[in-house]
Amino acid sequence: MKLTLVTSNAHKAEEVAAFFGGMLEVEHIAMEIPEHRSDDVRTIARGKARFAFEHLKTPVIVDDTGLSIDALNGFPGPYAAYVLHTIGNEGILKLMERAEDRRAHFTTAIAFADGDGERVFQGTLHGRIAPNPRGRGGFGYDPIFEWEGRTLAELRLEEKSRISHRAKALRYFREWFVKEHRMEDAQDTNG
Amino acid sequence: MKLTLVTSNAHKAEEVAAFFGGMLEVEHIAMEIPEHRSDDVRTIARGKARFAFEHLKTPVIVDDTGLSIDALNGFPGPYAAYVLHTIGNEGILKLMERAEDRRAHFTTAIAFADGDGERVFQGTLHGRIAPNPRGRGGFGYDPIFEWEGRTLAELRLEEKSRISHRAKALRYFREWFVKEHRMEDAQDTNG
Repeated sequence: MKLTLVTSNAHKAEEVAAFFGGMLEVEHIAMEIPEHRSDDVRTIARGKARFAFEHLKTPVIVDDTGLSIDALNGFPGPYAAYVLHTIGNEGILKLMERAEDRRAHFTTAIAFADGDGERVFQGTLHGRIAPNPRGRGGFGYDPIFEWEGRTLAELRLEEKSRISHRAKALRYFREWFVKEHRMEDAQDTNG
Repeated sequence: MKLTLVTSNAHKAEEVAAFFGGMLEVEHIAMEIPEHRSDDVRTIARGKARFAFEHLKTPVIVDDTGLSIDALNGFPGPYAAYVLHTIGNEGILKLMERAEDRRAHFTTAIAFADGDGERVFQGTLHGRIAPNPRGRGGFGYDPIFEWEGRTLAELRLEEKSRISHRAKALRYFREWFVKEHRMEDAQDTNG
């Protein structure tokens, strides 16, 4: 069975394929997709997946990740990527100066679409905004996002891949997908 | 001739109708429109207008306004509305603490679409981010946006309506529209 991941990042397709341990062929395609401007990554991912399926006529997944900071009323929300390349982590830390409530969470929504409709799977990681950037790993907001005392940039990659919002969403998707498509049975039959 | 303004703000339709001085019937309709996530309000407005025309099959205009602050690499850009209701003017001023370059500009793009295609009209207002909010008029970013020494919230409404980015875009649109549809001729014929 083949699944198409709509993304401009080829690495993500390899990651998903690895996640399914070879059960599934995953190709990626870059595609500009109009989206509902929404404060909710679930809505954004679902709309994109529907649009991509309607154009490609093949089962697709699309993901979307947001960062929500409690003290900033959810900012940067679904605009995490835009905010990162304009004001960056430095800007976030400036906004959080003197903020006592430092709670934040990442959310990844993975939306699957095929001829039967759409399904969305969501993974969340709760943490805190660090007072200063720390660590050399990861990318994006990782150096300022603390999880259990360390920033994501201080975690080993395996550890981050185990606990991350994206890994959780992928796990929920895989569980459902395997059941829905009776992939164990298919493997028995073919084996 | 009737023009449909796609907006959730009924007041805007009245404003456009007034702007055309009765030459044109302007109705408004609220409609959820998917959009290309873009850093450019022209692209956003054009995509929305095309979508709205395809669904409504009647000539439409759509507008979109962004605020771009030079020292923040263009932030908040087309996400001005979202940024305003999360970090607000207070957040912008915090990001601008100690910034020497305080230049900023508003851009409104008005996109018109009918069966012949789309046209986009853009109005820009250059100014500076004030050190502190001032003035009681206006809304949104007006108290922190200075134009020729006063903030937009310190201007009288008539003055703001004369110089604003939105007024400029509307003016360009009206000039083109009147020519394109030979409205003077039509008035002569009917008068």
